[in-house]
Amino acid sequence: MAKLRVHNLSISLDGYVAGPSQTREEPLGHDGERLHEWMFVDRDPVDHRFWAAGQEGIGAAIMGRNMFGPVRGAWGDEQWRGWWGDDPPFHHDVFVLTHHAHESIPMQGGTTFHFVADGIEAALAQATVAAGGLDVRLGGGAATVQEYLRAGLVDELHLAIVPILLGGGERLFDHLDGCPEGLECAELVSSPRVAHVLLVRR
Amino acid sequence: MAKLRVHNLSISLDGYVAGPSQTREEPLGHDGERLHEWMFVDRDPVDHRFWAAGQEGIGAAIMGRNMFGPVRGAWGDEQWRGWWGDDPPFHHDVFVLTHHAHESIPMQGGTTFHFVADGIEAALAQATVAAGGLDVRLGGGAATVQEYLRAGLVDELHLAIVPILLGGGERLFDHLDGCPEGLECAELVSSPRVAHVLLVRR
Repeated sequence: MAKLRVHNLSISLDGYVAGPSQTREEPLGHDGERLHEWMFVDRDPVDHRFWAAGQEGIGAAIMGRNMFGPVRGAWGDEQWRGWWGDDPPFHHDVFVLTHHAHESIPMQGGTTFHFVADGIEAALAQATVAAGGLDVRLGGGAATVQEYLRAGLVDELHLAIVPILLGGGERLFDHLDGCPEGLECAELVSSPRVAHVLLVRR
Repeated sequence: MAKLRVHNLSISLDGYVAGPSQTREEPLGHDGERLHEWMFVDRDPVDHRFWAAGQEGIGAAIMGRNMFGPVRGAWGDEQWRGWWGDDPPFHHDVFVLTHHAHESIPMQGGTTFHFVADGIEAALAQATVAAGGLDVRLGGGAATVQEYLRAGLVDELHLAIVPILLGGGERLFDHLDGCPEGLECAELVSSPRVAHVLLVRR
């Protein structure tokens, strides 16, 4: 059975997965890039192990529309094709949650963006088929992860706690109607820069 | 110059320092005791080092009224003397923030509870004198730490991140009017049970 897995979800000490004042120039909000430095600059071996685990055994992905791009509401004429250039780093099918239908966008390198307008369960069902026996990775943003947490559909949640304070932005643990049920800590380990927590569904 | 230091402030992954539904029987709220198990049950060497640091070089303490006891509003007739029995584990002067004056309460073992009704700066000034050149430890609850953070008076903040979800309760990083200024990570290290972060004022 395919698992739905969240990896490398970087979160500040004060609980934000994106900083305040998100714009097209700063899609992660003010100072939000600091959440992701550990992945890109002098990656520590502990950090690398967790980072790499997010690529292993994944056959498809799901993400929220805000992670796909800055366009809100109807798509209009804009030919937005994601933040990642012509050859996005996914190399598999990516299902984007949206309220506005859009035809699929094939990219170089095996990535195809599909758009799902009929809900998170439909997206998971399609992604599971596309994954062909591998797991499905769930991307952000916070609202998307929250939707799947509320539905009890997240099997693994890896948080990368970055010891900074952002003071505002998007909180991960919010709008959850209490506690996500059944997630418990399977691993806690820290590099000098990041504390990694792996929560798994019982 | 005496420092104002917060130690062993246990916080859940979702940011709570006390669980929901606090009562006299469950002063830390539902499931809140799980935040503190690491201090009391089979303490790991890494955890022990941080726990012990909270006792070192401390000459006085400050805490909020809710940490001192469950009595709200006027003191009335109740002879509340804290949660800790006749010989509390402080062994120095403890300044309790309150809106209601109360005479000092000397306890066994060197602890005396004093009550400060004229604000956090007054409490810090009195505690600094009482500490006699040592540092002042700041206890909880969340609202008290927030007051001192907003005032920029916290020199060291040690958080013990416990990898559990509480789903509700008192959030530490709330009501802060943005980001506490000038705190940066001096150490991040983890035992298998707790990730410790030491923030210090630049």
